[in-house]
Amino acid sequence: MTIYINQCQHYLPNGAVDNTLLAQRFGLNADWISLFLGNTSRYFATDLVSGEVKKSLCDIATEAAQEVMQKELLTSEDLDFIVLSTATPDQLMPATVNLVAERLGAKNVPTFQLQSGCTGAMQAISLARSLLLSGEYKRGLVIGADVCSKFIDPTKDYAQSDANEQINFALFGDGAGALIMSTQPTGLGWEITQFSCRFTGLELPPGQIVNWRGLRETDDVMLMEDYKAIEAHVPKLAAEMLDNLWTAAASEGNEIDWYLPPQLSGRMTHHIVNELGLSRDKVINCVHETGNNGNALPFVQLSYLRDRMEDKQSAMLIAIESSKWIQAGMLIRKEAV
Amino acid sequence: MTIYINQCQHYLPNGAVDNTLLAQRFGLNADWISLFLGNTSRYFATDLVSGEVKKSLCDIATEAAQEVMQKELLTSEDLDFIVLSTATPDQLMPATVNLVAERLGAKNVPTFQLQSGCTGAMQAISLARSLLLSGEYKRGLVIGADVCSKFIDPTKDYAQSDANEQINFALFGDGAGALIMSTQPTGLGWEITQFSCRFTGLELPPGQIVNWRGLRETDDVMLMEDYKAIEAHVPKLAAEMLDNLWTAAASEGNEIDWYLPPQLSGRMTHHIVNELGLSRDKVINCVHETGNNGNALPFVQLSYLRDRMEDKQSAMLIAIESSKWIQAGMLIRKEAV
Repeated sequence: MTIYINQCQHYLPNGAVDNTLLAQRFGLNADWISLFLGNTSRYFATDLVSGEVKKSLCDIATEAAQEVMQKELLTSEDLDFIVLSTATPDQLMPATVNLVAERLGAKNVPTFQLQSGCTGAMQAISLARSLLLSGEYKRGLVIGADVCSKFIDPTKDYAQSDANEQINFALFGDGAGALIMSTQPTGLGWEITQFSCRFTGLELPPGQIVNWRGLRETDDVMLMEDYKAIEAHVPKLAAEMLDNLWTAAASEGNEIDWYLPPQLSGRMTHHIVNELGLSRDKVINCVHETGNNGNALPFVQLSYLRDRMEDKQSAMLIAIESSKWIQAGMLIRKEAV
Repeated sequence: MTIYINQCQHYLPNGAVDNTLLAQRFGLNADWISLFLGNTSRYFATDLVSGEVKKSLCDIATEAAQEVMQKELLTSEDLDFIVLSTATPDQLMPATVNLVAERLGAKNVPTFQLQSGCTGAMQAISLARSLLLSGEYKRGLVIGADVCSKFIDPTKDYAQSDANEQINFALFGDGAGALIMSTQPTGLGWEITQFSCRFTGLELPPGQIVNWRGLRETDDVMLMEDYKAIEAHVPKLAAEMLDNLWTAAASEGNEIDWYLPPQLSGRMTHHIVNELGLSRDKVINCVHETGNNGNALPFVQLSYLRDRMEDKQSAMLIAIESSKWIQAGMLIRKEAV
C-alpha cells in the first residue's frame, strides 16, 4: 500500500518579530543575533511587550488544520484520525488534540497526541503512516505545533539574565503546521517512498531539556540547550541519515531534487548544509525567518516546498532531535496527478 | 492479521499507603475515604512524610517494562518499537519514553510517547496495534504510567486546603503497567478481537484538568475534577461501549467471561458495575487497592486478569476519559496455547 501526503499548510501567529524588537525585549544585541544565529525573525503567540497570550497551542494548531482541510475541501467527517505532536501542550490534560478535534467538529474520531520535539513532526507522520498502512483508516489530519513562548516570564527583565537564557528566545519561535495524509494520490500527490524515525540516544546525555514542575519548587533547570553537543552530533547524525536515504533513492534510480535539512538556527543550518555538501539552490530552509518552532518546523519546510516541487521530482527531509537524540528521515516523490 | 497481547505486568512504587496515613497527611478523615470513595490504599512515588521523590516516571515505567520483558524472556533487541502513554511526564523534553529506551538498552528503535489520561493505556494499545497491523513491526513494548504525586507540594499543610483539593490525593495514585504485543500467539496468547478508542467530547466541557504553567504565574486551576460531570457521563458512555462490544461478541458467538470496567474510585466503579448490570464475580477491579493511577490502571486490571483467565475465555475492557471525553473498549480472547 502507498501512503501519500495530499496537502500541507503552516500557520505563524501574530506578526514577525524582527531582531531589533527581540533584542530590546531580551537584552540582546540585534547584530549579534543576525551574525551568530543567522535568524532575521520569528513569531510568538504571546505579545512581547504586554506579555498577553494572544494564541494558545489549540488556537494555532486549529488554524493550520482548518487551512489545510480547506485546501483539500475536506470537512471533519472526512477525517478518520487526528494526530498532534508537540513539546508544549496547553495543559497536560485534556490533551490539546482533543480540544482541536472539538473546534473542528470531529465526532467519534481516534485522536493521538505525541510528546516530542524536533522530530515530533516525523513521529506524527510515522504514526499516521502506520494507521493508514494498517488498512483501518483512509485519511487523517496530522498537526505539529509549539508555543515555546509559554516559557517567557512576562514580569521578568531579561536584560539581567545570563546569555544562555537570553539566547533561547532568539532561537525559538511559535508556529503550527498541518498535513493531510491518505492512501490516495489526490492533491499534491506526494508519495512517501522511504521513512525512518528512531531513538539513537544510547550513551548520549540529553542535548535539550524542557521542564515542568507540578507544584514542587525545585532548582531543576527549566530550559537547557547543550549547543556544543548539538553542534557535535546533529551534523553527524544528519550525514548518516542522508547516506542511508541516498542509498535507498539510488537503488530505485531516483535523483534528489530538494533537500529539507535539520533546522536549528539559520547559521547552524547553513553549517550543516555545507557539511553535507548540498547545493544551496536545492535546499529548503525556513528557520531564519520563522525561528525554531519545533514540532511545526518540518511542516513549514514542506509547506515552502509545496509551491516549488514539480511532477516526478523527489525531496529528502531530515530531522534530528537533540533532547535525547532521535534520527529521522523521509523521501517523498511527487506523482504526476 | 491477528494482534496479540503476549504478556502483562504492573509495578506499584514503595509500600501501600493506607487511609490512616493518607488522612493524616492531607487533613482527611480515614472513615470518610473508605465510605465515600471506597478506596483502601494507593501507592506514591513520593514519600508522603519527607516529601522526597523516591521514583520518577522513568523509574517505574522501566521497572514494569523490565518485568514484562523478563516474563517473556525478551531483550531490548527483540523490541521493534516502544510506546509510553502518560499524563505526567518527568519532563516535557526529553520525552520519558526515550529515557526508558536508554535504560532498556534499546538501540535504533522507534519510540512514541502519548499524552493522555484514563484512556491513555487504550490509545497506546491502539497505536501498537496499528504499528503491528502495518506489517512493518513484529513485536513491541507498550507502557502506561503516571506519577500523580508530582502535584503534591511537600511544603504545604493540606489540612487547611479545601475539600476539592484534598480529595485528589485520596483518589489518585502512582503506578506503571506494561504489555508485550505482537503478531504471534505466544505467552498469554490474548487475541484482540475488537478494539475501539475515539474522541466523544463534542459539546461537553472538560471533566478533568491537569495543568502546567511554564514560567508564567497564573490563577489557572492546576488540578480539577468535575465529579458531577464524571458521575453523569462515565456510566452512560461505559454502557454505550458495553452494548457495542456485546453486539460484536454475540455476532461471533462469544460469551464474555470477565469484565474490566472504568476505574475511578472503588465506590464509583461499584456504582458503574451495578448500572451496567454486571455480575460481581466476573468483574476485575483494582482501583480500591491501587488508587486511580491513570495510564497504568487498565494494565493493572489486565495484570490481575492474567492469573484468572482460562483458555478460550473472553474479556471486555472499557475505559472512559473524562478530561475531554474519550470512549474506549476492547475484547480479548485467550487462545489455547
